[in-house]
Amino acid sequence: MHSYKHTVNYYETDKMGITHHSNYVRFMEEARIDLLASIGWPYDRLEKEGIISPVVAVECRYKTPSTFADILDIKVRVAEFKGVKLKIEYKMTCNDKVVCEARSEHCFVNDKGMPIRLQKEFPDLYDCLIEHAQEDSGIIL
Amino acid sequence: MHSYKHTVNYYETDKMGITHHSNYVRFMEEARIDLLASIGWPYDRLEKEGIISPVVAVECRYKTPSTFADILDIKVRVAEFKGVKLKIEYKMTCNDKVVCEARSEHCFVNDKGMPIRLQKEFPDLYDCLIEHAQEDSGIIL
Amino acid sequence: MHSYKHTVNYYETDKMGITHHSNYVRFMEEARIDLLASIGWPYDRLEKEGIISPVVAVECRYKTPSTFADILDIKVRVAEFKGVKLKIEYKMTCNDKVVCEARSEHCFVNDKGMPIRLQKEFPDLYDCLIEHAQEDSGIIL
Amino acid sequence: MHSYKHTVNYYETDKMGITHHSNYVRFMEEARIDLLASIGWPYDRLEKEGIISPVVAVECRYKTPSTFADILDIKVRVAEFKGVKLKIEYKMTCNDKVVCEARSEHCFVNDKGMPIRLQKEFPDLYDCLIEHAQEDSGIIL
Repeated sequence: MHSYKHTVNYYETDKMGITHHSNYVRFMEEARIDLLASIGWPYDRLEKEGIISPVVAVECRYKTPSTFADILDIKVRVAEFKGVKLKIEYKMTCNDKVVCEARSEHCFVNDKGMPIRLQKEFPDLYDCLIEHAQEDSGIIL
Repeated sequence: MHSYKHTVNYYETDKMGITHHSNYVRFMEEARIDLLASIGWPYDRLEKEGIISPVVAVECRYKTPSTFADILDIKVRVAEFKGVKLKIEYKMTCNDKVVCEARSEHCFVNDKGMPIRLQKEFPDLYDCLIEHAQEDSGIIL
Repeated sequence: MHSYKHTVNYYETDKMGITHHSNYVRFMEEARIDLLASIGWPYDRLEKEGIISPVVAVECRYKTPSTFADILDIKVRVAEFKGVKLKIEYKMTCNDKVVCEARSEHCFVNDKGMPIRLQKEFPDLYDCLIEHAQEDSGIIL
Repeated sequence: MHSYKHTVNYYETDKMGITHHSNYVRFMEEARIDLLASIGWPYDRLEKEGIISPVVAVECRYKTPSTFADILDIKVRVAEFKGVKLKIEYKMTCNDKVVCEARSEHCFVNDKGMPIRLQKEFPDLYDCLIEHAQEDSGIIL
């Protein structure tokens, strides 16, 4: 399972004294980009090949607050990919307490915004995601 | 149905040229606070009474991108309240196109982080939310 | 003198309980874009004409903290323009207390990043800025 | 000279395709907190001792744009401290190009917002800052 660390910055806290909940959506992006790089698809490779991968949906469930200087351990995995939609899952912990569980959903379009048929046009990426959707089968959520 | 406007700022866009998806979670907060104020519970009244209302979960489904200078019309309503959990729904449109559909879930705790029994301790707020959960029954999502 | 309002959002506060200082740089951008629109140069007109106006420098001096729900009144003016560099000044107050005094500096480049000679290429914008640099002579800082 | 790295996140870019200028003020905070930790004064030690260090002023001069995935090398030093005001300087480079030069200014107050006389009340911190103001004399700006 891929793991990514984010140390909470002061500017990411709010007047309740905790990490503002909107920031976890940003941490998800960091972890996802790190995961893609780790399986051979850094974001700039995607962009260079003309593949854009918009976020279609996000979902976060907040379990325990975190705050400034906390080191979040973010486990991230390809949860589902059958050719069109990519689903990613995230589990963020801090000192072994679950902080946030999350999911995101993505599609693939070209620079004109038209859906890409990955299997035909980018078989390398297709195979890579299919393979990880199977391998990363450890349930984290 | 309560309506709130947010004009997208330049700093809320990303290099894809569109509003970064994390910002919609912030627009939800703006709209929610505006809704609560409109029904007699501005956030500072909540805080003064010692009521803290943390976000337990958020969910966004992105339909059409928006970008700098777009004026988002955010319809927001109390979707469910039976005494403990408050569920809010949001529908953001721009020029009659749906941009984002979203939900959030909230609980109520005191300044020690202990759950508050609203019906007993804050009957005014309880009644107000119950009433709006019924009235705001127009389905927006 | 042009005036712009910003109501501080919850997500703009930090765990010190006040508006995080980095956000004032964003409020400056909001006020500046509003000023430019008010003198006939909304940002999308600039972009459509192929004029890009990067921020060369910013400077903020924080006087009094502000916090969630505070309504900031931002006075903004063209402080200097002699043809190349545009200097803008800002004075943010809340309930008649000065919150932040600020300056920003901008240049004008085309989409290849090359400096634009405004007087020749965009005399309308040139004249407009020259005129406002004189008129807006009320010292706000 | 203390050095801190920040890798630019996707959500830190704007529709111009570059790092939004407001974010450098946040990178300064990250680097400053890292510097203070490296000289024995992590932020939580300051807070535990009841020392609050608000930002009094910031100043950034932008030299070259940076963008997503760029690794910024941030050199940071105590530029001046004579007992009351702390001045910090920053030089951010990417691939040996200067991206941003910056300064910040800070004071020290207690939890009632009253100025602290560091030399009397916190001689350890006072000595540490005086020492670094002398040692870090390499001019970076």
